[in-house]
Amino acid sequence: MTQSADVQSYQAKVYVTLRPSVLDPAGTAVRSGLSHMGHDNVSKVRIGKYIEVDLTAQSKVSAQEQLDKICDQLLANPVIENYCVEVFEAA
Amino acid sequence: MTQSADVQSYQAKVYVTLRPSVLDPAGTAVRSGLSHMGHDNVSKVRIGKYIEVDLTAQSKVSAQEQLDKICDQLLANPVIENYCVEVFEAA
Repeated sequence: MTQSADVQSYQAKVYVTLRPSVLDPAGTAVRSGLSHMGHDNVSKVRIGKYIEVDLTAQSKVSAQEQLDKICDQLLANPVIENYCVEVFEAA
Repeated sequence: MTQSADVQSYQAKVYVTLRPSVLDPAGTAVRSGLSHMGHDNVSKVRIGKYIEVDLTAQSKVSAQEQLDKICDQLLANPVIENYCVEVFEAA
């Protein structure tokens, strides 16, 4: 892929988690399963999403802003989920 | 919860990702959706799981070992997925 000189490749890691006040039935099921398997010392399990995004942008700040928009629009449901975005320059 | 003196609380973050050679139809669908929404600069999306686990253990090493076992047994499918575990002492 050819890129114009002022565009840089970035890799982002997006973590989407349920808000603490929202129940997580899948996490509860996993905790219960672990207990049945002998892992009685596990007190809590919460399951979220981890998303890797490769993109190009003019700056790290603009990549971050675009990813915040992407999370609000598509990757997370802001009513019940929080998200966290980490942006790295691609190697 | 009362704990014996030699047991410490830990919080673990588990990242489960598809192996690079495994296709990710959900990620491809998200990338396609983003493209339709005008985010043409996103070249790749891979979707994994992010799991928070609270547990007690006698040491950080034993917590790590137990979590590796839990990932192999339940949280990840080692045939198609990789996982990464980070253990922190609970505040």
